[in-house]
Amino acid sequence: MPVNLSAPIASDLHAVPGVRIGVAEAGVRKAHRKDLTVFLLDEGATVAGVFTKNRFCAAPVQVCREHLEGGQAIRAMVVNTGNANAGTGADGLARARATCAALAGRLGLDARQVLPFSTGVIMEPLPVDRIEAGLPAALADAQPAHWARAAEGIMTTDTLPKAFSTQVQIGGTTVTITGISKGAGMIRPNMATMLGFLATDACIAPALVQQLVRELADQSFNRVTIDGDTSTNDSFVLVATHQAAHAPITSLDSDEGGALKAALLEVAQKLAQSIVRDGEGATKFITVRVEGGRTGEECRQVAYAIAHSPLVKTAFFASDPNLGRILAAVGYAGIEDLDQTLIDLYLDDVHVAVQGGRNPAYREEDGQRVMKQSEITVRVVLGRGDAADTVWTCDLSHEYVTINADYRS
Amino acid sequence: MPVNLSAPIASDLHAVPGVRIGVAEAGVRKAHRKDLTVFLLDEGATVAGVFTKNRFCAAPVQVCREHLEGGQAIRAMVVNTGNANAGTGADGLARARATCAALAGRLGLDARQVLPFSTGVIMEPLPVDRIEAGLPAALADAQPAHWARAAEGIMTTDTLPKAFSTQVQIGGTTVTITGISKGAGMIRPNMATMLGFLATDACIAPALVQQLVRELADQSFNRVTIDGDTSTNDSFVLVATHQAAHAPITSLDSDEGGALKAALLEVAQKLAQSIVRDGEGATKFITVRVEGGRTGEECRQVAYAIAHSPLVKTAFFASDPNLGRILAAVGYAGIEDLDQTLIDLYLDDVHVAVQGGRNPAYREEDGQRVMKQSEITVRVVLGRGDAADTVWTCDLSHEYVTINADYRS
Repeated sequence: MPVNLSAPIASDLHAVPGVRIGVAEAGVRKAHRKDLTVFLLDEGATVAGVFTKNRFCAAPVQVCREHLEGGQAIRAMVVNTGNANAGTGADGLARARATCAALAGRLGLDARQVLPFSTGVIMEPLPVDRIEAGLPAALADAQPAHWARAAEGIMTTDTLPKAFSTQVQIGGTTVTITGISKGAGMIRPNMATMLGFLATDACIAPALVQQLVRELADQSFNRVTIDGDTSTNDSFVLVATHQAAHAPITSLDSDEGGALKAALLEVAQKLAQSIVRDGEGATKFITVRVEGGRTGEECRQVAYAIAHSPLVKTAFFASDPNLGRILAAVGYAGIEDLDQTLIDLYLDDVHVAVQGGRNPAYREEDGQRVMKQSEITVRVVLGRGDAADTVWTCDLSHEYVTINADYRS
Repeated sequence: MPVNLSAPIASDLHAVPGVRIGVAEAGVRKAHRKDLTVFLLDEGATVAGVFTKNRFCAAPVQVCREHLEGGQAIRAMVVNTGNANAGTGADGLARARATCAALAGRLGLDARQVLPFSTGVIMEPLPVDRIEAGLPAALADAQPAHWARAAEGIMTTDTLPKAFSTQVQIGGTTVTITGISKGAGMIRPNMATMLGFLATDACIAPALVQQLVRELADQSFNRVTIDGDTSTNDSFVLVATHQAAHAPITSLDSDEGGALKAALLEVAQKLAQSIVRDGEGATKFITVRVEGGRTGEECRQVAYAIAHSPLVKTAFFASDPNLGRILAAVGYAGIEDLDQTLIDLYLDDVHVAVQGGRNPAYREEDGQRVMKQSEITVRVVLGRGDAADTVWTCDLSHEYVTINADYRS
């Protein structure tokens, strides 16, 4: 059951001028399931993306990179669930390209103007014929208002669709930002999450869009983990249609650039956190904050060691303040010259450990109280510098094992 | 339920001349449980050890290092379960030293001639008074034949005691090697396992003992993982009593040195593997073999990525040949220039993937057949060099979550 997350209400999601979305049931893996989504972008839109660092990256990820580097204007995106088209070799690449060609043919575009995305089972051939057969229905469905349908159309083991929307004033003009994401397992994004799409009608210098998508990913999707398994298909895409009437933004350091980035980041973080809230089997949402490090990198290293520890995660599931497990994870995070006698540990407002040992004032019932909550912040102070960073994760429950033991059946 | 592992039979375990062992119920954490073990070593024995690289290493680990470096002959070791004396700060160090002093006092030794070991819950004060009170019973129990009792005396969440013994001819003399180990969770040894004790009466140059313990650990305890959680208390100790009548071994490269090392390694690997076989919730014993790497280090890196992936481990638990998850783990193992089109994957004798894609000859029923076995070898060929390495692990089951959610209750 997702942690403090509810399904988006379609009417809360603002359409983004310049973006239309259509969804269909193509039967990629199972019948009667929305599994094919197309995004149609008006001429003039800029698209940028960040993709998985997994060396076994999926065929569609390879094709996305090619098409984005190719320099032709991206005018459409096609997303299927049910099959990741990863671990599929040269044949998989051909199938990803065939999907782009099929959609491009129907839209009068070059295949290189289409970005493909796939998510689902790895190492099985993508049924391109079913996707092609589903395209007419998806295109006929295309509407600016279909963000909620798209959020549903890209789900796999997600229990809820994930979509957020906001509006911000830029130079007296209302600018819209709307995004969707999916993912619940195989989540330790390394550049981006499983799938995330964010669009805005903001008018912004095209060169800034790639910078923005990278900075947004680094502060949102690149800070969440469920099981530490970096996916083969992680993709996060930002679309700017430039249709809002304000003067173009040419720097992210300007007032307008800063306001836009803050609003985009708000949506991106909500999307990323919602993946954790709906993490496979999740019963708790955990914020791991590491402070007092020499660099942000070492803070992240410690935060991920905690966030990936099966022992820490099962203790959260059990609401058991077996907090020495957190200290053990700090100790094996890989910081060679870490001094345990400088380390403090907090659970929300409870000061658990002082200078590497149990705080004499710590009472088990205080730890117990916090561990029972559905949202918990672990705060570790390393005492060796001024850097800090945060990672979001969830617990490890029986349901995680059940879901992943039964995924394909 | 342990995977193809049974309890040792006391009469199969050869006594090691020069070593006596006593076990008692000290009530460290729970009553009526063998939780205190002492090893008494004859004068002249050499002791060497390797310890956890966890920066939150436990107080007894710190004291062991001090006493081994101090240069005084080690004459006794004391092991308690129920409490790890880790994450306990300066007070924990004082308690570890007090334990040594108490045993030394009863034996007429200096406290620095005693090595302390603790295993159990982290961040709780060690009840030294109960340990002191238990020492007379442990000392009264001391016998050369008590290896099976010791294997039982050091258990925590282990379901079976772990002990192996062998004999080897060195220069016409029968030399004995006997060892015990414990550990079932928080297992990704980094120098050594949770606790491992190996003793031999071989006559060997004392300077070689430290080299031997390191080489043995690297090929046994440092090649197993259950949950990737490197413990705060990992300790592996080798005792050589030198009481066998053969000529002293002065080089591991001699025939005698090689024969001794091979016999020691056989016992060390059995002890290490038995920890995985009795891994928390384990239903399968998995050998992960990575070949064709540029270095052994990168082979281990890939093998550990596979062995730690919750998705791979749950697929093994489910006997589900969802083998793309293994390719995904290979991809995120961190080898920057890995070429997926060179990679082959085998499950025992079944050739699953060729050049990064599904083998056209692979049939799901063949994968299914192997996945149902209780012992499975995953073999990945990286296609970029001649190095290889092997890691042993187990699956991730519901029982793992149950055990670790309930550990302290």
